[in-house]
Amino acid sequence: MGRHTLEYPKTKDNTVRRHNERAIYALETIHNLVNSSQLLDVSFNPPDSPFPATLPMIGHMGSFDRPSADLGDPLDLYLHGYVSSRMMNVARAADKDKSEGDDQQQQQQQEQGLPVCIAASHVDALILATSAFNHSYNYRSVVLFGYATLVEDESEKTYAMELITNGVVPDRWKTSRQPPTKAEMQSTSILKVKITSGSAKFRDGGVSDDKHDLQNEEAQSSVWTGVVPVFSSLGEPVSTTYNKVDVPTNVTDFIKDYNNENKEYVLSAIKK
Amino acid sequence: MGRHTLEYPKTKDNTVRRHNERAIYALETIHNLVNSSQLLDVSFNPPDSPFPATLPMIGHMGSFDRPSADLGDPLDLYLHGYVSSRMMNVARAADKDKSEGDDQQQQQQQEQGLPVCIAASHVDALILATSAFNHSYNYRSVVLFGYATLVEDESEKTYAMELITNGVVPDRWKTSRQPPTKAEMQSTSILKVKITSGSAKFRDGGVSDDKHDLQNEEAQSSVWTGVVPVFSSLGEPVSTTYNKVDVPTNVTDFIKDYNNENKEYVLSAIKK
Repeated sequence: MGRHTLEYPKTKDNTVRRHNERAIYALETIHNLVNSSQLLDVSFNPPDSPFPATLPMIGHMGSFDRPSADLGDPLDLYLHGYVSSRMMNVARAADKDKSEGDDQQQQQQQEQGLPVCIAASHVDALILATSAFNHSYNYRSVVLFGYATLVEDESEKTYAMELITNGVVPDRWKTSRQPPTKAEMQSTSILKVKITSGSAKFRDGGVSDDKHDLQNEEAQSSVWTGVVPVFSSLGEPVSTTYNKVDVPTNVTDFIKDYNNENKEYVLSAIKK
Repeated sequence: MGRHTLEYPKTKDNTVRRHNERAIYALETIHNLVNSSQLLDVSFNPPDSPFPATLPMIGHMGSFDRPSADLGDPLDLYLHGYVSSRMMNVARAADKDKSEGDDQQQQQQQEQGLPVCIAASHVDALILATSAFNHSYNYRSVVLFGYATLVEDESEKTYAMELITNGVVPDRWKTSRQPPTKAEMQSTSILKVKITSGSAKFRDGGVSDDKHDLQNEEAQSSVWTGVVPVFSSLGEPVSTTYNKVDVPTNVTDFIKDYNNENKEYVLSAIKK
């Protein structure tokens, strides 16, 4: 409504090179996709290995400084992890050793935090073309780059835990046992990622066959071509044996909405 | 049947530190999970950035030298990509510049290929506990480390394309238009990853509440606790407008098997 759409600037990190007509840089689309992903693949470089390391983590985008910020605004990514995990140790070491950096790049990195790449994807359909080489998926994928630091501030940690818990099921934070215990707060670590860039890539539509395959009568009379939709859905909730209360509406509504929205998106994407 | 179960050796890269009771090192379990993943997150280090870069790719485990190898044997990972993608360029440069390495590590890396980390995860259930801090997912996640090189040999490339295509839908390769054209073979790149280590991590079962929460009558009389299953399923196939043949049984059987196996696993995992 007259408001500008914010986009991540294109850098060498986030620019989509192949099928760049599928690229999306709008903050709102990217943040929305991150927040609708149950797991995020978080990659970082351990100091003692040639390989990047990837950990699946739960995370959500938000702004502690401006909690009313909406999805199209610049946001931070909060990740939930454990004190003992390798990544947390690297982030913590990076934080502690700030003054010990012996070259400029290392120094800079330690001040900014741990460089991470966050990725998430949804597969929406299998696209089965005449030629194996034109097979594809409908999908929505997102990637973010940024610097991760440990959240030390107690109130920011609580803000992030609430954000992440409500990202799993809306309103779950306030409908679970409150307040957190001291031990819970101490044993939980939260990483905050300051985002430097990001992009998304969507593929929708149906089969895209080459002209020579469409004109190949032998192929067209023997190869089935079409789309197989892929759905993610939530099933009927299963209560614990000791549970004493009805399944609350925030849970039942969430299941209904999740299933409807997913199905609608997948089926409408095929028709694009 | 009297046969030894092969496991990946535990190294600093692949050893599961947090919840190591959930760790799995068996080749068969790990390879099976990779092969049942529609997308793999492949991470590598671009030479010109502090961030690892992650690309979602389609891949499958196999052995060109011993095509009859089974899932529990040492296997390579074949990844499908495009000549123009950033990762392929890095892999190709690493390959071409073999003789130009100016320090030992770089030299070694160029001979072995591009160090990559491959990750995939399935979320099987949302675990909603009394305390937000005991919330969890049932999940199956896998990570592999290895060195990626471009496949140059034409027959190995064809082997890999068949393997990957049949990984999307069983028997799809021979039921699609054959043979590949010259242009198709030339425009397609395949990366082969020689695996150095890997591990998987599974979480199953139901809610795991702290004793003090189970004894907290106020909490137990107000907080719903239970599990929400998460299913991935395939929908009814949608034929192209120009399709002339019936949906073949390899497609319909695959949809049926995929949906049954997924549902059975998710529901049985909750009961463990």
